[in-house]
Amino acid sequence: MSPPPPEATVRSTPGTISWGYIDARLPPVLRVKSGQTVRIETVTHQGINTTQDPVAYFGAAGIAPGDVLQDAVDIFRKVKRAEGAGPHIITGPVYVEGAEPGDTLEVRILDVEFRVPYGVNATGPDRGAVPDLLEKPEQKVIKLDLERRVARFSRDVEVPLAPFMGIVAVAPPPEHSPASTKPPGPWGGNIDFRHLTAGSTLYLPVFNEGALFYTGDGHACQGDGEVDGTAIEISLTPTVELIVRKGAGKDMRWPRAEDAAHYYSMGMAPDLGEALRNAIREAVDFLQRKAKLSPAEAYALCSLAVDFRIGEAVNNVLMVYGAIPKRLFKGGPEYWHGKQDGIQDRGSRVEQGLRIQRQRCV
Amino acid sequence: MSPPPPEATVRSTPGTISWGYIDARLPPVLRVKSGQTVRIETVTHQGINTTQDPVAYFGAAGIAPGDVLQDAVDIFRKVKRAEGAGPHIITGPVYVEGAEPGDTLEVRILDVEFRVPYGVNATGPDRGAVPDLLEKPEQKVIKLDLERRVARFSRDVEVPLAPFMGIVAVAPPPEHSPASTKPPGPWGGNIDFRHLTAGSTLYLPVFNEGALFYTGDGHACQGDGEVDGTAIEISLTPTVELIVRKGAGKDMRWPRAEDAAHYYSMGMAPDLGEALRNAIREAVDFLQRKAKLSPAEAYALCSLAVDFRIGEAVNNVLMVYGAIPKRLFKGGPEYWHGKQDGIQDRGSRVEQGLRIQRQRCV
Repeated sequence: MSPPPPEATVRSTPGTISWGYIDARLPPVLRVKSGQTVRIETVTHQGINTTQDPVAYFGAAGIAPGDVLQDAVDIFRKVKRAEGAGPHIITGPVYVEGAEPGDTLEVRILDVEFRVPYGVNATGPDRGAVPDLLEKPEQKVIKLDLERRVARFSRDVEVPLAPFMGIVAVAPPPEHSPASTKPPGPWGGNIDFRHLTAGSTLYLPVFNEGALFYTGDGHACQGDGEVDGTAIEISLTPTVELIVRKGAGKDMRWPRAEDAAHYYSMGMAPDLGEALRNAIREAVDFLQRKAKLSPAEAYALCSLAVDFRIGEAVNNVLMVYGAIPKRLFKGGPEYWHGKQDGIQDRGSRVEQGLRIQRQRCV
Repeated sequence: MSPPPPEATVRSTPGTISWGYIDARLPPVLRVKSGQTVRIETVTHQGINTTQDPVAYFGAAGIAPGDVLQDAVDIFRKVKRAEGAGPHIITGPVYVEGAEPGDTLEVRILDVEFRVPYGVNATGPDRGAVPDLLEKPEQKVIKLDLERRVARFSRDVEVPLAPFMGIVAVAPPPEHSPASTKPPGPWGGNIDFRHLTAGSTLYLPVFNEGALFYTGDGHACQGDGEVDGTAIEISLTPTVELIVRKGAGKDMRWPRAEDAAHYYSMGMAPDLGEALRNAIREAVDFLQRKAKLSPAEAYALCSLAVDFRIGEAVNNVLMVYGAIPKRLFKGGPEYWHGKQDGIQDRGSRVEQGLRIQRQRCV
């Protein structure tokens, strides 16, 4: 599937990126109308956040100088990360005309392109969900086979690629701006939600005029939890369609998402159990509206059919999501509701659903 | 796929069940050799743990008296649940010859049959992962369409069936016996692990001579988390193959599992974050052995490719599991490792893998 040609492009340069902060006060790098598509280059901070030049850093791992992005070199030379800032380099903000506080920004992920065929996993003591697991910092440059769509992790291990943006955000409310890029929040941000691959949609409440959209923190692949603190951190170019839904953000407490197979509720908190409770409350609210259920029925349906999973467990504010299968609800294609053979059947049926929905969407 | 004919059967009667305790001191209801297959009837406690007779309880929900299990009626009449016991009715113990402390009991789930076409979800205040969500107790008898393999939840909602046993256990160490059936532990028990459908394997460390296998707490379907405190609680008949692996349990801290598509690590604790940390440590240990990785590499691979998910969040001791895809490792069929198109492809490839592995297994 070729992505549609974008209506605008944002390059990543020292002038279009922000290092460590999601800020409502920065001037927009682009203005778009609701419904327009934008291709947005991003740069990973890995290889820039070192004392070495990116060419030297990646060169030590066998990456040729010509394969190092010029914007990474430019940012290393010209941009200084502020004291106390988050680690991530993000691109934006994009001003979406007509967006106002109380609206929802619908972010359709149309495509996620690789800019380079390599990325970095970085971990160590005090990193990740088990801070005492390791005794010294570790960095691993991982090469990708983009033809076969796998990361070459080791001689015997290859990991399928499923690229997505770790940070997708609108600017936080003015009283919370600038916000560190590290903890996610109601504005999205560093949610590290691995289902935001091409074909998914993220819904964010709008807190500022123009919504002020940012993205960054590309991941080539990641498991639920991102447990060592990083994924394969990589420079990616997402293409998104930004749609303003007037008034739809008034009651939103957390971001929501969907793809062809699932609706996703999210909950966040510094404690994993509290994040779970928030995600359950979101799912219960959603199911009450979607299927006209009582709170008790919605809670029961969550227990029977919604998978609560650990989005990320490492960003100070943790995220749990509920995956609500679309095929629970009558009204989809008839074959979604035919004879099921337990969990083993889910894959192929989800596949079928995906194909159908994609045909409808594009 | 028809299950193989079992070599022995255990009926559920007042004499073969235990209400609320997993106990190393009860006399075996059956002795089998390692490698034998056993078909074990189980009875859900729902409809028996009431002041009403099961015929009256289910009758109020439109279930005909002839569709109520005689063993449920017998147990209601003849067995008294002890003060402080767990809620579940379990069948066993089955003594497996040759099993000794330090061994592993490999439990292959060959089949899980429905005994009745209805089950119960029960929730309310102080129940589940959000104890303050509801104001009064709620019970819902849910009818199943076994032909179409769905639970009829409401007019607009149907849930695919994926039956599995919530409790699969060996007897706890003598010093922990009898143990309540509610909190799971290193001996398994009430792990409510929804991937234990037919075609999966659970590995449990052995703590007593003969292992002393118990099962119960049938679930017609359940989401990751079992968040309202119950699934569709139902009487099921699993058929299992019980295999003693000599000496393999010496270093086991928690149960492990696998199916055609994944290895599963598990971690438990009263706190969800601590359960996650335990599951990560288990996965790191597994990956070090399986793929000859350093601790740092194994931690990184967990972050890139292992999904950490909430097994159950409601049994006082919570369970988090890591799903480690088998296709990460070279050596499987070549098409497991071909061109991937991100996460959308996983379903069909897992499907293919399942079919192939099932052909090999049976």
